[in-house]
This record gives sequence, structure tokens and C-alpha cells, in this order.
Amino acid sequence: MTRAVELAARGLGRTAPNPVVGCVVLDAAGRVVGEGWHARAGGPHAEVMALAEAGDAARGGTAVVTLEPCRHTGRTGPCTGALLDAGVDHVVVAVPDPTKAAGGGADLLRDNGIDVIEGIGHEAAAHGNRAWLHAMATGRPLVTWKLASTLDGRTAAADGTSRWITGPQARADVHRLRAQSDAVLVGGATLRADDPHLAVRDIDGAVQPLRVVIDSRAEVPLTARVLDDAAPTLVVVAEGADAARLRAADVDVLAVPADLAGLDLAALLAGLHERDVRSVLLEGGAHLAASFVAADLVDEVVAHIAPTLLGAGSPVLADAGITTITEALRLTTTDVVRLGDDIAITATVRREH
Amino acid sequence: MTRAVELAARGLGRTAPNPVVGCVVLDAAGRVVGEGWHARAGGPHAEVMALAEAGDAARGGTAVVTLEPCRHTGRTGPCTGALLDAGVDHVVVAVPDPTKAAGGGADLLRDNGIDVIEGIGHEAAAHGNRAWLHAMATGRPLVTWKLASTLDGRTAAADGTSRWITGPQARADVHRLRAQSDAVLVGGATLRADDPHLAVRDIDGAVQPLRVVIDSRAEVPLTARVLDDAAPTLVVVAEGADAARLRAADVDVLAVPADLAGLDLAALLAGLHERDVRSVLLEGGAHLAASFVAADLVDEVVAHIAPTLLGAGSPVLADAGITTITEALRLTTTDVVRLGDDIAITATVRREH
Repeated sequence: MTRAVELAARGLGRTAPNPVVGCVVLDAAGRVVGEGWHARAGGPHAEVMALAEAGDAARGGTAVVTLEPCRHTGRTGPCTGALLDAGVDHVVVAVPDPTKAAGGGADLLRDNGIDVIEGIGHEAAAHGNRAWLHAMATGRPLVTWKLASTLDGRTAAADGTSRWITGPQARADVHRLRAQSDAVLVGGATLRADDPHLAVRDIDGAVQPLRVVIDSRAEVPLTARVLDDAAPTLVVVAEGADAARLRAADVDVLAVPADLAGLDLAALLAGLHERDVRSVLLEGGAHLAASFVAADLVDEVVAHIAPTLLGAGSPVLADAGITTITEALRLTTTDVVRLGDDIAITATVRREH
Repeated sequence: MTRAVELAARGLGRTAPNPVVGCVVLDAAGRVVGEGWHARAGGPHAEVMALAEAGDAARGGTAVVTLEPCRHTGRTGPCTGALLDAGVDHVVVAVPDPTKAAGGGADLLRDNGIDVIEGIGHEAAAHGNRAWLHAMATGRPLVTWKLASTLDGRTAAADGTSRWITGPQARADVHRLRAQSDAVLVGGATLRADDPHLAVRDIDGAVQPLRVVIDSRAEVPLTARVLDDAAPTLVVVAEGADAARLRAADVDVLAVPADLAGLDLAALLAGLHERDVRSVLLEGGAHLAASFVAADLVDEVVAHIAPTLLGAGSPVLADAGITTITEALRLTTTDVVRLGDDIAITATVRREH
């Protein structure tokens, strides 16, 4: 299953609106005879790919798969059928499929005489598929806030200068994070101040994420770097803003309700979900992140921390309405790695549900 | 030498004003026959302890020692003499002794026919002895700033609440850091707000560090927890402050010059150096740390970072006079470890000299 989870991860950022799935097929003697992963929506499912590699060797063997095989015919045929046709005797499944249309595959396999074992490697497989599982459970994409700050929580010096706080390895890691996300999101202040590009660079074969910029008043110039053709782009405006200029230039525009506090972020995420986005990388800035925190819409944080002290300048997170320590947003650390001199801390927001 | 460096570390926080030293003695066949470390000032040196364990087995053997053996008679006899008496043929040394009184031991051994190899394991041994080497080179103790903050650089919420930002493992690690330091220092704001105790708890056999509190106007109440008898304490006041009340109560007082910016921190460190302090753990708060940063008197940082977001509240470091990114205080990360859900980042200030 560990290998199947590794295979599944190859699909991150590529399979939306589908989950990532990995599959290993063993022959009757327990030898690996096929490997597969779901590489893109509309492409073959992991089981089909692995069974194709295994061929006749799958007969009497075992399929190890990270997610319960689907029983429905979508853009491709059902995986349960492929497993039955291949003649495997055992199927090992890590995570059940929570969707109504595709779920129930394990029972269908059992009804056809296959020995099905569920729950093996559940934690690792669920973690690898967390964006899709989260989106299926909540109806909105998983939001990962990526921050870069000094050791004392600053993102820029007192005079606004900030290049570069983190080093080249951390900056390269941002492209990896973008490539594994379905969408990348920045706020209006970042859009105006930095003219960011937001596309993935220097990763072979990367699928570009949807670039999403918040531009409440529909003021972004058509010359903005984010509007080039390196990747698709969505401009989010407030309902009532005059986006005719943008639409006339074939810019994709999403209008969401706004109030005094800003845009309705839940509506924004719902709009992204409708566009098949299952994971969003929130890249800045401090005020947008604070709005997401205040709305309890941040699910994960990836903090790139540079061993640098400033003592003054912009804090990495603006006021999110938290006034006392018991209201602090608490996370669980899931990963800590060094990126050159910088440190990358990944943590998941703790929720009771 | 790796083992000798481990042995040396047992003396951290115990040997001031002396260095930490570890020694392993091998017999003529290369078997370990003696181990030693310098455990306290006035106690036996590492070489003497290791040679005593080795006895006659040292003859024709090798002594591996983290610091060049001393040639002077201090509170104990010279280690060079002990090595000659023991009849070792080889001495392996990591770091030369920079002091005039004790240095030159390697040459003296060579003059007496012993084969001396220098520089083996230099980096690790110098790192282990960095406080003492720093103090010998600069005439002031090594200053390590210990901070505890949220992932977004806050030490307290907007309403001032801060218990607890970090978890029990990080808080226990503070006691380890204290035990390895010769002195622990907090500023007046922390003294008044928190009534800290600053002694080491829950570490078997720990030597208590000197507790140093800044109290410019000599206002600390005699009932302050830091004035109990759990550990020695030094109260640092501004020159001209009336400390008669404290002195009358047998409180140890150090008066240092003050100007509008506060106390002369270099004079404070010089005063600590005179009291045999070679390492200082700076525990807070944000303004004292900023004064040390502004005076370029911070040498290391140990950051305990909790996976928690506040978005408002006290920043971990106050204004240190840094206005633009090129002036940022840059450090080199030396260690990253997880302490439960918290992350401990150790980093050393980069200096050209």
C-alpha cells in the first residue's frame, strides 16, 4: 500500500475533479506485476492501468488500491468491472469512496466472490487524497495557506522591501506546491503591489493550476502578468462591479457577493468547486489570509520560515478577529523539513468535526 | 573524537569559567580504556579523569581530546604533565587552546617526543565549546536568545493572554537550555509582568544558572520569586539608582551605565563575564531582545514555534532599528527538531569576522 500511495501522489494537481489513486497488482505468488495511477481526469483509472500492465498475471492475484474501486461508468468504464474481468482473487482497499455515484464498489466485488480487505494503510492514503476527500465532505476545496516569513513573523521590512526573505530552495518549493494544487489564489493588494505571475516554473510536465486573483472592483490591467497565456486565470470580482472590460477581453470572471468585510469567501470557494477545483493554494497577502482565518476557511498551512530577524515591518498575518489565547487557531504539525537555511513547517487546522 | 565531544557536552553549564572538555584514552592496541570529561571548575580535567581510568593501559596508547591540553597549573596540575607521566605515544586534539596562560600544550608535548595530531573533529568540538571559545575571543559571554512564538510571530494574544503558546515538551526544553547556560537573563517588563522564577526544574543534578534580572530603577520587591534561594540571582540596575534596599537585603547588585536607550548592554555582559559567566540565555521579552539585536549582541537564537495562529497581539521581537531588508539580521540554521507539536529552530547569527 505504501507503494500505491506513492503512485497516487503522482497525480496531485492533475486529476481534478477526480481523486488521486494508486494501484499495485500482485500475481498469485505475491510478485508485483503491475503498477498504475490516475494521471488525469478522463484518462484511465489506476486499477485499469495496473491491470493492463499485469495482463494475465493478474489472474488469481491481488489488487492493492488506495481508494475503493468505482462501480459507475463515468468518462471511463467502472473499475470493479475491470477487476472482475482480470480475475483477481483479492482486493485490498485503503479508503472507502464516500461518493454516492461511485461508492459501493467493495460490496459489488464481494457479491462477485472477490475477497475484499478494507482499511489497510488508511491514514497515509487518506492524507495523500485529503484535498479530494475534504472537497467531497464539505463541498468546497481544501485551502492551504502558504506563507513565507522571518523567524519573527515578518514578510517585509519597515520600508516595504522583502526580496528575498526565503532562499532559492524555498522558492522552488512554492512551484512544487503550485503544481500539486488545482488553483493558486492571491488577493487584490498582492495583485496590485507585486504583479505576480503565479504560474509553475521549472517543473517538468507540470499541469498549470488555475490562477485566481481577487480584484473586487474589476480594475486589473489587461497587461497584468497573471493574464498572460502561461496558465488559465480567473478574476474574482464583487457582484455589481463593472467587469465588461475584462469580459470583452475574454478574461474569465467570477462575481461573488461582497459586504463591508470584503468578498464572501465561502461563495468564492463554492464557485471554484463548481469549476472542478479541489485544492487551493492561498499565497497572500496578510489581509486575505486573515479573512480566510476569520471565516474558518483555512485547512492547512505551509510556513516557509527564514532564519532572519526584522523586528519591524509587515506581519505575516493581519488581524483575524482573534482577541484572546483560547481563540487562537490551533494546528497539528504534520511535516517539518529544511529547505537550505529555511524551514518548511506543514500543519493542519484542528477541527472538532 | 565523536565520543569525546559527547563526553565534553556533559559539562555544559557546569564548568564556567572553564571550557567543556572530553577525553577518550585508547591503549596501544586501539581499545578504549578510559573516558573523562571536565565536570566542574576546580575539579579534575578531562585528561586526568580519563587517564586515571586507563591506568597502566594508557602506556604507548593514544589520548583523544576535544581541546588542546593545558600546560599551566591552575586549580589543578597541567594536563600535559599528566599525559607525559602516563606514557601515551599519541595525542589527538580537535581545537587549539586560544588562551595565553594554558595554550602551547601541543608544542610542549611534541618537544617531549609525543606524536600530536591537531584539527581532527574541529567543527563538532568547536561547536560544542562555542560559548567558551566565543567568550575567550570577545571578552563577553555567548548570548542565546530563546523565544517562544506562534507560527505568525506572536507571543501573546491581543488581550495579553499567552498561557500556553508552546506545549509541555518545549517548556521542558527551556529547562535543559537553562541548565546548559551559566546565566539566564530577563528584562524589567518580564520581571514585573510575570514574576518569573528562572530556576531549572526537573533535571537531575542540574547546576542552577545565575538568574539575572534587569531592574533599572531597583524596584524589585524582595518577595519576587527570582529572589528566593533556589539559585543565585543578580539584579542589574542603572548607575545612580538607589539599590540600598536591595543591598541591605544581601541581594547581589550590578550597576551599569544607562542612557535614554536603556542600559549599556555591553557593560552588562562585561560585568557577567567578570563573574565567570560564559553563556547567557536571554529569555525575554520582546523589547530586551530588540535592544540586544540593535546592539549586535545576540549570537544564537533558539526559537520554539507553536503551530498556532493569532493574527494580532504582541510580536516576539520589538523594533530593533532595522528599516530595510538588507539590514535584516541573518542567521544560519544549525538545528531543527520537533518538540511535540512545536518546532525548535536553532540558528547562529552570521558575522563577517
